[in-house]
Order: sequence, then structure tokens, then C-alpha cells
Amino acid sequence: MRKVTFRVATSLDNYIARQDGSFDWILQSEDSSSSLAEFWKTIDTVLWGRKTYDLVKGRMPAYKGVKNYVFSRKLKESADQGVELINQDAAEFVQVLKKQEGQDVFVMGGGELAKSLFEADLIDEVGMNIHPVLLGSGIALFHEMKRQINLELIECKTFSDGCVLVSYRVIS
Amino acid sequence: MRKVTFRVATSLDNYIARQDGSFDWILQSEDSSSSLAEFWKTIDTVLWGRKTYDLVKGRMPAYKGVKNYVFSRKLKESADQGVELINQDAAEFVQVLKKQEGQDVFVMGGGELAKSLFEADLIDEVGMNIHPVLLGSGIALFHEMKRQINLELIECKTFSDGCVLVSYRVIS
Repeated sequence: MRKVTFRVATSLDNYIARQDGSFDWILQSEDSSSSLAEFWKTIDTVLWGRKTYDLVKGRMPAYKGVKNYVFSRKLKESADQGVELINQDAAEFVQVLKKQEGQDVFVMGGGELAKSLFEADLIDEVGMNIHPVLLGSGIALFHEMKRQINLELIECKTFSDGCVLVSYRVIS
Repeated sequence: MRKVTFRVATSLDNYIARQDGSFDWILQSEDSSSSLAEFWKTIDTVLWGRKTYDLVKGRMPAYKGVKNYVFSRKLKESADQGVELINQDAAEFVQVLKKQEGQDVFVMGGGELAKSLFEADLIDEVGMNIHPVLLGSGIALFHEMKRQINLELIECKTFSDGCVLVSYRVIS
């Protein structure tokens, strides 16, 4: 079964972007980039929420060399050739995806997609690269969920840019 | 000048209690308790928001051997002899307090008190003991703030119970 990981860069107060969608506050250092590069080696599929995809689509291309799925009931066609739109229920789609042959799956976000996948018990691991900033306001990482998710700490890494990557296994 | 530290136990999704105020999910291990005990040695004053004080007042006594201040415009008298009620603006009060002789100051919370002290640039350090759980809903740790707070990572400690304590200096 393919592993599904929700991995994000976040502020300490759990915002993934400023209110206007900007992420100028995201840091990049050699050691954090190389940790992310290691993670990418395990991935061949990226799942995007529609809002997150809207945020980044003008600013960066869909990831190359991997399959990109964007969940949306609104979008008719994607701006990007490397992207497949999924109108189906995300949980149902991911249930099937997990059983297919392939490398692991990266849930890029956003919070609404993650919420539906957490609630359906489809996320296996969580990684948060916590940035040394309280943004004060912005687009929230987490949305209220119907149930508690219990985690087990796998690893905690400190990077030279002051970010802390915490990685967890979902246990129930 | 006395150092003012906002230190809290929080879930990974930044809740400090369940919706009903319960904190049965808080873990205690020998190493996390001894880290907290070291912190207490530096403290002689605890600041409480009124709501946080309401949450805990039936469940635990105000801390002994330290000065406890509760900020409230509503409360007339405290349930606890060891507690002094402050009707004054929290930021004005803490500005004076910081200049007084004494040990360091512990902002126990909650989020509304922290928000007003962050915005007034009165908090020097932040410590979050991040628990390995997504509660999904509850009482939020952070409230929206008017400005961004930039932090510098001081330390990141992993405890045997799977909690991660991240400590930051406020830089601007």
C-alpha cells in the first residue's frame, strides 16, 4: 500500500500563506532543501486542493516527473498540462490510489483536502516544517475536524534557517 | 529588565484545550516535567488571562510561591487567595512589571492575553510544548494579530512522551 504524507511549510501559528496568498516568509536553506529533496525521491504523485493549486499555479509549474491531481468540483480545465482534474470525492479517489502500484503520495494541501483525508483515515504521515514566525493572520493550515488524530513522533530536525521539521506517523 | 515568556502546552493543530475546556490529552513524562521544573526556577510571577484562569481554577490551585495576576474587567473577586485581579490594561501593567525588581515572568495564557502582549512587544520568549495529536477542534492557542512577530529558534527538545518543545526569542 502506498504511503500518503501530508507535508507542509507552516508558520508557528499554523498559517500556510498570508491572507493575500503570498508566501514570501518561506525560508530556504541548503539543509532544509536537501531534506525536501530526499522526500521527493520517495514520491511519484502529488495531490492538490483546488485553492492551493489556484494560489501557486501562476507562480510555479506543476511538479514535473510526477503525477499531479487537483481536486475540484468547480474547475473545468487546468491551466497546466501536467495536471489532472478530479471531480470525484477525494477520499474515494485516494482509497483507490493507495492500492495502485507506485511510489508514495504527497498531499500538498491545502487544509480542506487534508481534513477530508484525515477524517477518512487515509493519511499515514504528517510533516510540518515550522518556520520561526508568527504571521498573525493568513490562510489556516488546519480546518476543524470531526475527530482527533493521534500521532507518533518519528523525527524532529532543526535546520540552519531556524526551521524545525516535525514528522509523525498517524496511529489512529 | 525581567524576561517575559509565553509558554504553553499545545496540540499540533494549536489548540490548548478541547472545546469543553478539558486537557486530558496533555502528556507528562519525567524529562518534560524536569524541563518545566527548570523553567519554574527562573519565574516568580505568573500572568493569567481570565478565561484560562476560569478553566483551571476548579482543577488546580494558583501556583504557590509565585505572584499570580489574572487580567479581567469582569471578575470582582478571585476564587483563590493567592491571586490578584488586574482590571487595568494588560500591556500597561506588564510594561511597569517588567521594570520592577524580580525574577522572570510566565505568561500562562490564554491566547487573548498573549495577543495583546505580543502586539505591544512585551513578550521576550515563546515556548511551545507541541503534543503528538491533532485535536481537530477546541480552544485556539493563537488569536489573529495586527502584526507579524519574527522569532529566532533558541532550542528544540524532544521528550520521551513524543512531545517537542520549541523555544524562540522574539526579535521584532
